[in-house]
Amino acid sequence: MSFDVLQDKIKAKRNPTVAGLDARVEYVPPFILKKYIDLHGQTLEAAAEAVLEFDKGLIDALADMVPAVKPQSAYFEMLGWRGMKALDEIIAYAKSKDLFVIADVKRGDIGTTAAAYSEAWLGTTQVGGVSHPVFDADCVTLNGYMGSDAVKPFLKDCTDWDKCAFVLAKTSNPSSMELQDIVAGDRLVYTVMGDLIQRWGKDTQGKYGYQALGAVVGATHPSVLKELRRRLDRVFFLVPGYGAQGGTAAAVQYAFDELGRGAIVNASRSIMCAWQKTGKNGEDYQEAARAAAEKMRDEIKQYVTIL
Amino acid sequence: MSFDVLQDKIKAKRNPTVAGLDARVEYVPPFILKKYIDLHGQTLEAAAEAVLEFDKGLIDALADMVPAVKPQSAYFEMLGWRGMKALDEIIAYAKSKDLFVIADVKRGDIGTTAAAYSEAWLGTTQVGGVSHPVFDADCVTLNGYMGSDAVKPFLKDCTDWDKCAFVLAKTSNPSSMELQDIVAGDRLVYTVMGDLIQRWGKDTQGKYGYQALGAVVGATHPSVLKELRRRLDRVFFLVPGYGAQGGTAAAVQYAFDELGRGAIVNASRSIMCAWQKTGKNGEDYQEAARAAAEKMRDEIKQYVTIL
Repeated sequence: MSFDVLQDKIKAKRNPTVAGLDARVEYVPPFILKKYIDLHGQTLEAAAEAVLEFDKGLIDALADMVPAVKPQSAYFEMLGWRGMKALDEIIAYAKSKDLFVIADVKRGDIGTTAAAYSEAWLGTTQVGGVSHPVFDADCVTLNGYMGSDAVKPFLKDCTDWDKCAFVLAKTSNPSSMELQDIVAGDRLVYTVMGDLIQRWGKDTQGKYGYQALGAVVGATHPSVLKELRRRLDRVFFLVPGYGAQGGTAAAVQYAFDELGRGAIVNASRSIMCAWQKTGKNGEDYQEAARAAAEKMRDEIKQYVTIL
Repeated sequence: MSFDVLQDKIKAKRNPTVAGLDARVEYVPPFILKKYIDLHGQTLEAAAEAVLEFDKGLIDALADMVPAVKPQSAYFEMLGWRGMKALDEIIAYAKSKDLFVIADVKRGDIGTTAAAYSEAWLGTTQVGGVSHPVFDADCVTLNGYMGSDAVKPFLKDCTDWDKCAFVLAKTSNPSSMELQDIVAGDRLVYTVMGDLIQRWGKDTQGKYGYQALGAVVGATHPSVLKELRRRLDRVFFLVPGYGAQGGTAAAVQYAFDELGRGAIVNASRSIMCAWQKTGKNGEDYQEAARAAAEKMRDEIKQYVTIL
């Protein structure tokens, strides 16, 4: 099961963090953006090529230090099909650098449509007699509001292709309480979702005891991390909300099991936009990103020892 | 508000139905697929061009009779960026034929990411000093599990660009009960979501009394349609699950208000794949789709009169 692969990479790099690739055009250093605007004008094409160069540069800077990257589909979709072409190239590039790729797509649909999404992101698409990998990430994020119909086709591809997925349980944003914290009998909605995730993923455990179906639990809710870590002992956690959203190393320690396993913490803007704080106009974006990622790794190391 | 535009088109064509464009490669008539495989081999490129021709042919066949089409993103994503390019062209083509376009993307994310999705599907992306419409649909589907943070950026674009959105409430699939039917105090989770949708959308009412934020409620639950129609009197409904999934005209009548307004019913496979039942190997796919769409319209007409 693919969380084994991720856990092995985390262990090798002694770093349970994932770098988000969520670049709006404004996050791209001016010298990169200018190059493509000079070539193509102020077009989506220029923006897509600029984001591609920026993300590749980030990958080059981080590849020996972080185990995984998490491109966020929204920032590529906003550049149209050219953005999706860039996303395709970025996933392939990250994999060529031996990084684990989590496609943050938060898809959720049913039956044949869920199967189509799974073919797009994890599996393969059949054309005549030929099977084509499409975006071919190692892992995706999913939304389970529609129930197991939305998840099962992905579980099949997880098994067939040794991949994995995270389903939203308790998200890091302020308004997550509006639905997720509603009381449902002796549970809350996010606990119900967590229990469903553990149930849906049963029979897919890997060598570290974690199933191929993980959960998203925000860094901004340390007590929830503690509660769900105890309750969902076979569920790997993706923990967003570190840094910019207010999650701390002290908080995210509760996402890990007693062997320092079973979770990965995401940071996006604090790494990507680190260059905006050094006063060098982005010329040092790689060094700045690397320094921010090292800082985050070292902060978490104070609380978590990976065995 | 954009549901006014949709309601006007429904009224003009006396037809409260939307044709789903959800084409897997296998749904494309063989003579179309063969043409592109001969050109490009058994590739994603061939598949994307074949789906594009098929969908355009369906649009040509249906444009004077249905008010709206609903391309489903999954079936384009499974063809990679070439599929997204085809989706882009299909949305523009449908709009050029004066059809209302609902991009069925079921996106759900927070803050700046939700804003990026909204720019992608409803609004515009800024590159330097230039604003670019991207996929530029009239309407999208959303997933509200993350709360208002996932919806507000879309509401802003709905107001700025006269567009609208549907949020999942009670979906048509069997496993929708796993989370959506959980008891939460004196409500069920889908009722909680429905109430949130009505609340989030307040202050966006159009001339027919409907807000810019609608709800997805499946045709397979007539009693839920009846209950939510009463409860959410300002919420326009998108009703999937007609035909193949078991929803009937007798069931979907409850989605409409007493003036026959406030809802649109989707059918996808029964229209797209109608050619598979006529024994003509797809040569008649346009006539078959049109006949299926007419049948659906006339079935619903027996129960719903649009004033």
